[in-house]
Amino acid sequence: MDGVGTTRLETFSDGVFAIAATLLVLEITIPNPLHGSLGSELHHLWPSYLAYATSFITIGIIWVNHHSIFELVERVDRRLLFINTFFLLDIAFIPFPTKLVAEFLRSADERDAVLAYDCTLVLMAILFQVLWFYPARGRRLIAADAPQGRVDAITRAFRPGVPLYAGITAIAFVSATASVVLTLAAAIFYVPSEWLTRRR
Amino acid sequence: MDGVGTTRLETFSDGVFAIAATLLVLEITIPNPLHGSLGSELHHLWPSYLAYATSFITIGIIWVNHHSIFELVERVDRRLLFINTFFLLDIAFIPFPTKLVAEFLRSADERDAVLAYDCTLVLMAILFQVLWFYPARGRRLIAADAPQGRVDAITRAFRPGVPLYAGITAIAFVSATASVVLTLAAAIFYVPSEWLTRRR
Amino acid sequence: MDGVGTTRLETFSDGVFAIAATLLVLEITIPNPLHGSLGSELHHLWPSYLAYATSFITIGIIWVNHHSIFELVERVDRRLLFINTFFLLDIAFIPFPTKLVAEFLRSADERDAVLAYDCTLVLMAILFQVLWFYPARGRRLIAADAPQGRVDAITRAFRPGVPLYAGITAIAFVSATASVVLTLAAAIFYVPSEWLTRRR
Amino acid sequence: MDGVGTTRLETFSDGVFAIAATLLVLEITIPNPLHGSLGSELHHLWPSYLAYATSFITIGIIWVNHHSIFELVERVDRRLLFINTFFLLDIAFIPFPTKLVAEFLRSADERDAVLAYDCTLVLMAILFQVLWFYPARGRRLIAADAPQGRVDAITRAFRPGVPLYAGITAIAFVSATASVVLTLAAAIFYVPSEWLTRRR
Repeated sequence: MDGVGTTRLETFSDGVFAIAATLLVLEITIPNPLHGSLGSELHHLWPSYLAYATSFITIGIIWVNHHSIFELVERVDRRLLFINTFFLLDIAFIPFPTKLVAEFLRSADERDAVLAYDCTLVLMAILFQVLWFYPARGRRLIAADAPQGRVDAITRAFRPGVPLYAGITAIAFVSATASVVLTLAAAIFYVPSEWLTRRR
Repeated sequence: MDGVGTTRLETFSDGVFAIAATLLVLEITIPNPLHGSLGSELHHLWPSYLAYATSFITIGIIWVNHHSIFELVERVDRRLLFINTFFLLDIAFIPFPTKLVAEFLRSADERDAVLAYDCTLVLMAILFQVLWFYPARGRRLIAADAPQGRVDAITRAFRPGVPLYAGITAIAFVSATASVVLTLAAAIFYVPSEWLTRRR
Repeated sequence: MDGVGTTRLETFSDGVFAIAATLLVLEITIPNPLHGSLGSELHHLWPSYLAYATSFITIGIIWVNHHSIFELVERVDRRLLFINTFFLLDIAFIPFPTKLVAEFLRSADERDAVLAYDCTLVLMAILFQVLWFYPARGRRLIAADAPQGRVDAITRAFRPGVPLYAGITAIAFVSATASVVLTLAAAIFYVPSEWLTRRR
Repeated sequence: MDGVGTTRLETFSDGVFAIAATLLVLEITIPNPLHGSLGSELHHLWPSYLAYATSFITIGIIWVNHHSIFELVERVDRRLLFINTFFLLDIAFIPFPTKLVAEFLRSADERDAVLAYDCTLVLMAILFQVLWFYPARGRRLIAADAPQGRVDAITRAFRPGVPLYAGITAIAFVSATASVVLTLAAAIFYVPSEWLTRRR
């Protein structure tokens, strides 16, 4: 056998998804209400809440899609193990650029912060493509009983990912805030639609 | 099929519950004993311990009730997936207002801190209602073999949630400390009673 | 039925054990090598390493013993659910007094720090007793096929827990460092011996 | 029976691996862009990214190899339980020296930081050897149906671990950065090759 089962890879990945999402809250800095009431300071923290919600929902969606892949993939070989490890490395990194956005949105440095965030997600989208196209190409590691229709549906569903996040990155040069809001919208409107469509 | 099984949704949710509860301890600031002994400083930290215990037991109870729902729900559709993701987003957020309470209770800003905390729990209670009434309405996503009596019992048990937390929020305008103590009491006395009653 | 299965209680508990143990490392403060080389600063951090190792191994042993209980307990009722939640609340709290020991051992405040640590473990030992004696008393929630010999062996094995940690607490009044070292020794020598004996 | 099953040991270990890997991101300090743009500050953080990637991939590989061992080991006795607990204690410690490398690489204290990091990995490699040779010696705790060929393959695969990390430690006396880069290369090129070879 030139590959092993996917269960333990999925378990490790699920742990990383849940922990990364839950660590995001540590990114929100407790305000120091010297210049006003705590209430008004908490309102000024909205970039932190926006960054938190965007990353949390994005990781939730990625987790859903990761499972979609591994329902069809039945074996793991050396290359897929590496692709997945680099993918998780990028996912577990998300709390860092999320904190950059939380701290620097609406400051002079907001563009750099959002570009760091967007680049992390572009890299995620690229690794996600590889994570799917490597096992799917010629059904290299796909379960024999997986219907080709579902394989093709996932291929179609994942194709817009990289251009989408690349476009969101380009928008950061016009408006940093718009770029983050679009990332949130992408997580809410784009991917789960495909996920559930595939099952109908 | 217009929906998928609930197992992976439950696993991800369980991870978020356990991690959010265990991260709460990071909220307690190590005292700097310049003005007295470490022992007296540790006694002055009681708002931190109160906030920690309140949030920990509340998350524990929410976790128990979340399982109650998904014992009866057998399928997940797109909307339920979203409701659950927003619900988890609120759960994973709890360590932030918990730290606000820990830092600001018994200070001039205590009301704002406790209102932030209470609003997070009101939002949790609302999302919990939606998380139950959406699949339960007309038994939309309920398992065919789930007895209607248990469905009705959960409906009855969850109904007081939103008014309860809204009332606790109102009390914060009178006494911030009383509001937190009542949240702790609600977690201890209110929900698990229902949980176990349902099974008798 | 007046109680429910133990699986989900065990899963939640396992998550809290693993997360609490792994969060301990965040307790170690990165040194600021202004007064000497980083190497010598790292050597001066030995109280942090001692506190880390003591708490990590203690949590590992508690986890093992928690499983021992729930191999024999087959149902959870309302009271056991509460006892376990308070028990986990104490476990998840351990990183806080661990950091106190790490920061204040070998300082003027070391006794208060170690007393906070020891009291957390005494409370743990008391809750552990309750967690076992409540379901075991009259075999209230014990599986019908669990041999009485194993029930008795666990009862015997857990009995020294509270006096042991109370004694370690008393020693803190003589030497704070000795108290921590004895806690480490207790974790290494005392409990797992019983755990494995029970299975022979 | 003089030992117990390995399932719960594996579950606890998996939790520690996933949490330790995901906590690594907390090690990266948010820059304070007083002297330049946030963008240039983010570029200067490359030692943090290198340390993060090295530790993340190393923990991922260790996790894979840990599973390899426990596919063949079928029982846990008291000594193996201790070896594994000390092994996990070392794994969960990795975020601390990772932060030392992130903070001090390219500073005057870089050698001490990298030596602390390398020693943690040498200790990991030694404990990994013990974790395998203790159950494998005379097939003490190996499943009866495990083919001797696989046992021998793992023995061969793990043998270079300690000399490899010891050599990487020696290189830190010449170049701290080279030592970290070699650790990253070791994680990428060395171990998974063996892991997958064993299954062919």
